[in-house]
Amino acid sequence: MRTIERLTSLGLLAWFCCLSAEPVQGGKILVMPVDGSHWLSMKILVKELSLRGHEVVVLVPESSLLIQSSDTYRTEVFTVSYSQQELDGNFNELRKGIFNPPSSIGLLFEVQLLLNFTDLQVRGCESLLHNEALMSRLRAEGFHLVLTDPFLPCGPVLARLFSVPVVYFLQTLPCGLDLKANQCPTPPSYVPQFSSGNSPDMNFPQRVKNVLLSFVESYLCKLIYANFDNLVGKYLEDGMTYKELISHGDIWLVRYDFTFEWPRPLMPNMVLIGGINCAKNAPLPADLEEFVDGSGDDGFIIFTLGSMVPNMPEEIAKQFFDAFRQIPQKVLWRYTGVPPKDIPKNIRLMKWLPQNDLLAHPKAKIFLTHGGSHGVYECICNAVPMVMFPLFGDQEDNAHRMVARGVAEKLSIHDVTTEALLTAIKRIIHDKSYKQKMVQLSQIHLDRPLQPLDLAVFWTEFVMKHKGAAHLRVAAHDLNWIQYHSLDVLGFLALVLITVLVLTLKCCWFCTRSCFRKRTEKRKSQ
Amino acid sequence: MRTIERLTSLGLLAWFCCLSAEPVQGGKILVMPVDGSHWLSMKILVKELSLRGHEVVVLVPESSLLIQSSDTYRTEVFTVSYSQQELDGNFNELRKGIFNPPSSIGLLFEVQLLLNFTDLQVRGCESLLHNEALMSRLRAEGFHLVLTDPFLPCGPVLARLFSVPVVYFLQTLPCGLDLKANQCPTPPSYVPQFSSGNSPDMNFPQRVKNVLLSFVESYLCKLIYANFDNLVGKYLEDGMTYKELISHGDIWLVRYDFTFEWPRPLMPNMVLIGGINCAKNAPLPADLEEFVDGSGDDGFIIFTLGSMVPNMPEEIAKQFFDAFRQIPQKVLWRYTGVPPKDIPKNIRLMKWLPQNDLLAHPKAKIFLTHGGSHGVYECICNAVPMVMFPLFGDQEDNAHRMVARGVAEKLSIHDVTTEALLTAIKRIIHDKSYKQKMVQLSQIHLDRPLQPLDLAVFWTEFVMKHKGAAHLRVAAHDLNWIQYHSLDVLGFLALVLITVLVLTLKCCWFCTRSCFRKRTEKRKSQ
Repeated sequence: MRTIERLTSLGLLAWFCCLSAEPVQGGKILVMPVDGSHWLSMKILVKELSLRGHEVVVLVPESSLLIQSSDTYRTEVFTVSYSQQELDGNFNELRKGIFNPPSSIGLLFEVQLLLNFTDLQVRGCESLLHNEALMSRLRAEGFHLVLTDPFLPCGPVLARLFSVPVVYFLQTLPCGLDLKANQCPTPPSYVPQFSSGNSPDMNFPQRVKNVLLSFVESYLCKLIYANFDNLVGKYLEDGMTYKELISHGDIWLVRYDFTFEWPRPLMPNMVLIGGINCAKNAPLPADLEEFVDGSGDDGFIIFTLGSMVPNMPEEIAKQFFDAFRQIPQKVLWRYTGVPPKDIPKNIRLMKWLPQNDLLAHPKAKIFLTHGGSHGVYECICNAVPMVMFPLFGDQEDNAHRMVARGVAEKLSIHDVTTEALLTAIKRIIHDKSYKQKMVQLSQIHLDRPLQPLDLAVFWTEFVMKHKGAAHLRVAAHDLNWIQYHSLDVLGFLALVLITVLVLTLKCCWFCTRSCFRKRTEKRKSQ
Repeated sequence: MRTIERLTSLGLLAWFCCLSAEPVQGGKILVMPVDGSHWLSMKILVKELSLRGHEVVVLVPESSLLIQSSDTYRTEVFTVSYSQQELDGNFNELRKGIFNPPSSIGLLFEVQLLLNFTDLQVRGCESLLHNEALMSRLRAEGFHLVLTDPFLPCGPVLARLFSVPVVYFLQTLPCGLDLKANQCPTPPSYVPQFSSGNSPDMNFPQRVKNVLLSFVESYLCKLIYANFDNLVGKYLEDGMTYKELISHGDIWLVRYDFTFEWPRPLMPNMVLIGGINCAKNAPLPADLEEFVDGSGDDGFIIFTLGSMVPNMPEEIAKQFFDAFRQIPQKVLWRYTGVPPKDIPKNIRLMKWLPQNDLLAHPKAKIFLTHGGSHGVYECICNAVPMVMFPLFGDQEDNAHRMVARGVAEKLSIHDVTTEALLTAIKRIIHDKSYKQKMVQLSQIHLDRPLQPLDLAVFWTEFVMKHKGAAHLRVAAHDLNWIQYHSLDVLGFLALVLITVLVLTLKCCWFCTRSCFRKRTEKRKSQ
């Protein structure tokens, strides 16, 4: 890391010139990732930071889903108080729930699943914090930075414990805690609330719904983050909340882009890196290339419900098989269930799909997806329209935004039929507007001054070089809710105004009365 | 300009790849600049756009101050209904006013001067709009974009008349109309109001002042923009305000940087290009190089009160001459007044200074300045601390921010004394903290992923390529004040709540009464 001493010896100007051009070498970064799809895009940044000469240590719980060791970065595995079975059980419950009738996969079910998952993770974090040997070793490493996803609390807690600047990497947090913690204004009059089904141009009833949901959200926040608050209070400062802790984030690398998100106010320390996951395409394996190339002018369809849902009930799968049987397109389907005996020739079932590479193929016609943000960005990057089957979390909102932009059709996985599927697929194939609008969206998304990965690397290095980004932190963090909204000031001004009014009225009344009395006395004397 | 037809012939992927890399060639840009210092930084972008192959036409009123024809862009001179004398008279009034005792250069005086100036400019704009030959010629040019500073209304009016996307280039607008028009949240609880003298961390009285000033500002806005509103209503749509007109800006290139401005919320279409004016340094002329090089370890001081104020009253100048006589530093002073007979050898008076090139010299020690934003950015870029003499407009606020950051001393030009000057200069020379803090600020300012000029060019070309930036426009533009703040929704919810409460109470009262009545009747019957 450069210092002011070096600056003098090199001469100011020379230093200034190279400061913005030359990357920092040899930064030490502690990465506390979140497992599952969250890790998929963070991994891209982690690898890039390693390739650019930084020493990266990734903390991995011994029971994990997708986080694996790598040649490009070092991993530190820590023992946790839950087993792999317990973790898998958590996700199996989710997988089962999403194919049950809609009523059971409501908000409360999702919140309960989330709480089960975060509770497990908080226990995992406590295991790490109690692992004195590992904690001492990590502390001794002298990290310059913690890179973490604040979806789980362990990264921000470690950054605070080690007194190290912190960079967040995320899409969004449940109940919008990221925006609340970062003091980012979110007027409910035009910023749609999570799962409201609203677009920004709302009518009166929609705005009422949005405002009501913002109240519900505030309550949900307390419920969802109760165990995070306890953890923070226990290991950091008594009474400190998780929101307060993460408000100290130096830079928020948010996977936002306004071809996908609705436009909204931002804060100076929010860096938009939406689409970071589709930066690089690899060539397809030969057999796959041959299969998709053989699709002729009809092209092919890609179908996956994401890394968490490799399977579906047989009766639902049957609807898909029957639909695909009737279309001229070839279909690549991530499906690990028992296949029926008479699989049509145009379908290839696979255990894993090179999703982004397939979407980048010129013959890709439609993406059948659950609507996870990674897949949506890959579709936008590659200008492929979608049929979306939102399952849980933010997927319903993602689908709503894409349908509103005219680049996707939305179907419910619970009551999907062969006919509905065929109608949606044929509409997208034959109505050129889907493709045209997606091409337009894609052009806008891809046309940016700097690639999201370079931007993410830049700001991570910036925080290391300057030991934070205090110049981007707003003073709103030091105000409470009443002060922030100037309610105390308005109350005081109202009080002054009322006092002045009352005094003026009293004066007038006094003057009028004494004037009237004098006249009466004068009349009496006359 | 590329089209979707070309896209098909080239193949989607190839097109996407080059879209973000290759600049647009041959765009036609109409530039409506604002004269004076505003033009100095806009000119940099205008020249760069020309150099990158765009056809740029700059509209110049025949009576102007700094806008001149150039080899790199085309100018169209239009006749105006005011003379050069009238324009100069306007500025002379300002120049006279700023050296009078402080009481006379109050807010009202400044507003009056601003109104005199804008009134003249509105008349100038009307001359252009009535110039049918020129207007037809401009319309026939088929511009892809209007680039303008919304400080004056003619650019936005032309963009609307020609139905062309518009990019704004500005620092800020009087009474914060830019932020209001762009729906950018500006909480008065932590964003200091113009000329409040507040920093973001305000105590209660300061917040009261800030809120009161925000009320005053709303009134001032109506006063300041009355003639703009009339112009818009007369030539565009009846009842349309200037705020409404400029709210259609596609991209706002704002000369902001958070080493200079206080951190605050932003909107997605605000592109921060603070420091665009200090991108390039030229070598000094030989005689000047010799003069400053001869300053030895003591270095030299640069003194100018900006392009608008080349002079000062003799008695004030005397204080400066007497102070400079007593310091070992050499002094370069932009001074066009009558010099005294005994000018010390360490002072060189000049009619014009290569300000940024001088500040970039390693021996530059202090910048004595009025605190215009251009000069401040040049100081930040080159890490030179300042002594500031704010004269009018935003200069008081600029000085306040720099003093608060510990990189400048502030003095009043009205009662400046030799002693005060010597104290300020010596403090900055001997107390190393000024320089250290400025170096730190400079490092942060210069360390950015893309140079401001490249960023400005990128977004200007983006708007041309995509015919606007509608995806960055928030839906708040379609809401009125009550709707934006959800007051109608809150009122409705309060009404519902009160109705429910009243009905519940009525029910309870009815039940209690009927219950009581029954008992009484029962007792009576017993």
